[in-house]
Amino acid sequence: MKKIPFLIMSLALCASVYSQQALWGGQEIISPEIHPDNKVTFRFNAPDAKKVEVTGDFLPTQKMKTPMGETDAPGSAALLKNEKGVWEYTTPQPLASELYSYSFIIDGLKVTDPSNVYMSRDIASVTNIFIIGGGIGDLYKVNDVPHGTVARTWYESQSLGMSRRLTVYLPPGYETSEESFPVLYLLHGAGGDEEAWIELGRASQILDNMIAQGNVKPMIVVMTNGNAGQQAAPGESPRGMYKPSFMGDTRMDGAFEESFPEIVAFAERNYLVKTEKVDRAIAGLSMGGFHSMHISKQYPDMFDYVGLFSAAIIPPQGDVKLGVYENMDEKLKIQFSQNPKLYWIAIGNTDFLFKNNTDYRKMLDEKGYKYIYRESGEGHIWKNWRIYLTEFLPMLFK
Amino acid sequence: MKKIPFLIMSLALCASVYSQQALWGGQEIISPEIHPDNKVTFRFNAPDAKKVEVTGDFLPTQKMKTPMGETDAPGSAALLKNEKGVWEYTTPQPLASELYSYSFIIDGLKVTDPSNVYMSRDIASVTNIFIIGGGIGDLYKVNDVPHGTVARTWYESQSLGMSRRLTVYLPPGYETSEESFPVLYLLHGAGGDEEAWIELGRASQILDNMIAQGNVKPMIVVMTNGNAGQQAAPGESPRGMYKPSFMGDTRMDGAFEESFPEIVAFAERNYLVKTEKVDRAIAGLSMGGFHSMHISKQYPDMFDYVGLFSAAIIPPQGDVKLGVYENMDEKLKIQFSQNPKLYWIAIGNTDFLFKNNTDYRKMLDEKGYKYIYRESGEGHIWKNWRIYLTEFLPMLFK
Repeated sequence: MKKIPFLIMSLALCASVYSQQALWGGQEIISPEIHPDNKVTFRFNAPDAKKVEVTGDFLPTQKMKTPMGETDAPGSAALLKNEKGVWEYTTPQPLASELYSYSFIIDGLKVTDPSNVYMSRDIASVTNIFIIGGGIGDLYKVNDVPHGTVARTWYESQSLGMSRRLTVYLPPGYETSEESFPVLYLLHGAGGDEEAWIELGRASQILDNMIAQGNVKPMIVVMTNGNAGQQAAPGESPRGMYKPSFMGDTRMDGAFEESFPEIVAFAERNYLVKTEKVDRAIAGLSMGGFHSMHISKQYPDMFDYVGLFSAAIIPPQGDVKLGVYENMDEKLKIQFSQNPKLYWIAIGNTDFLFKNNTDYRKMLDEKGYKYIYRESGEGHIWKNWRIYLTEFLPMLFK
Repeated sequence: MKKIPFLIMSLALCASVYSQQALWGGQEIISPEIHPDNKVTFRFNAPDAKKVEVTGDFLPTQKMKTPMGETDAPGSAALLKNEKGVWEYTTPQPLASELYSYSFIIDGLKVTDPSNVYMSRDIASVTNIFIIGGGIGDLYKVNDVPHGTVARTWYESQSLGMSRRLTVYLPPGYETSEESFPVLYLLHGAGGDEEAWIELGRASQILDNMIAQGNVKPMIVVMTNGNAGQQAAPGESPRGMYKPSFMGDTRMDGAFEESFPEIVAFAERNYLVKTEKVDRAIAGLSMGGFHSMHISKQYPDMFDYVGLFSAAIIPPQGDVKLGVYENMDEKLKIQFSQNPKLYWIAIGNTDFLFKNNTDYRKMLDEKGYKYIYRESGEGHIWKNWRIYLTEFLPMLFK
């Protein structure tokens, strides 16, 4: 053990209330413990609990009842109590390289792991995370490579009438560079915000690692907030610390798409960004795929690279601004007549939007519009969206 | 209730596994609920629990046993179960305007509030937070004012032999500004890192709000990682997602202080930073106060403004690089002979470092060195450090 200087220790001992809390409040156990063979042990210190389970996406799915019927949900596994009152579960098999999420269920109560400070928020649900390396997961880790800058910044949207927050990735060396960079606009899904690709999508790690490998061109990535009624991620706007909800401020009425040139103009005013169509890409997941599809055809001179990840290709509806959504055939015709360098459609074969994407591709085929199609396993999950990003990035700006 | 378009709802219903999880996994209760009179209700849905308590710094402190004796710890209060199985507690009195932290204790088990996604990490301890407005807490909120940019970036430390992470606040309008800005270097305490002032200290909100009020000059704030053995905050370096510990990579051996000119040089190379002594400030809490004291006297031409917040003014010890710590009297003499514009010492009257600071001030008095002293109530807590920051900032660069 490392020697702790006496006076440093005294700092720890005498500090009152919360620093003390931080020192003695934690559990003295390690969880999760990733073994050298990639089996994982979960531990929870609850001597008096009757039942402790772990639930997460490293386990086979199980059926879950929702207010609207049955659906797939992460499975669960029971921990066993050892002689010290610590509950334990070790996966019977090594886990494949991935980023996983999990929670504990203590006597029926879902809680986070008090031994693991690493968490992700998905809408109003906070779960712990861990990464298994040795494969795709290595792209999600912080590795010993040059790191880009991640900036949270704000732009004025005239059309939406508010200040709005953006997350911007600047490639390694950007600050002292004289050159300009191509730019990818990367859009989240319903329930997400400008933090989603960084927090759940590990976008900055993927960019750092793939740029270091030489497989991806150094680029700026602008992660927008696609909820036209929202200024910023929950907790980051004047609305304060409200409880996030799925629908929240999501609107699919065309207002965000129509406002998009403001974001492009902001990026070009504030950053060393190349301004030709050939240096601009747009991609998004689910609702962000819907946005990318509509924005790229609404502004056919803007993007030469388009990525639709599990795109919510659904008809516009309700109280929509028809401007963006009308004359779809005609706008697609104009967009594809200019031969975009890449129009990439990716979806999982169990995704609930699989048929919508199949129908959309059928239409593109009938018109003779060129695109590249990537079909993966599984469904509408972040695992797929991270993988799609790692596949999409190397095709850009080549 | 807001009308939810049918197809958006279908997105929610059919999405599988984790998005589903996010939708149906949360509890349908509001906690904490801040009432108009600033009383606060905490709620926890656990029909089968025997005892539910809330613990936090909004309650009077209580004595807590630690391995090294008794100390103050946040108090606790019992929740009562209502007819729906939801446990509730409402503070008997309105809470004063502040940022508060809390956790639940369910049958003896400390857990975060599953209804509140807003949390702070202090070393290995994660607690929920909420803000009561109407006073100092308004400076910690995100308000409808121009927002600066918060960038996480990396610099190469030749002397420490590693890439290291920095958090940088850039004032509103920075990106399109032609002018240069003064710069404050803001340092954390032992157990903290480059995230501490942003996450626990609400530094970006304080800066945004006070610059908007016109009380604080627009400035750049560079928040360093003062642990000489550490590249970045836990989870943000190649060390991965390890369990943070109090001592961790903290070193008080002079290496960080000696390396400081590298950080100043980096800031001046990468940002529009004024480079005169009169445009540079350094401040820190606890260990960061110790660092600020030593750095400002080691480099007497560097900083015209120095802030020591609950500074750990303790003798150097153990395996130290004497270069920084030797000839203290002589170095202080040089520093004060140049009449720094501000040398600000702040400490709480119950802080365990109170006597150390009193002794240090006595020595300064004997030598006739000028400083400003601010004594607050309470001890070695973030509440004080946030308040000190709000008091220190308006005195800078005037």
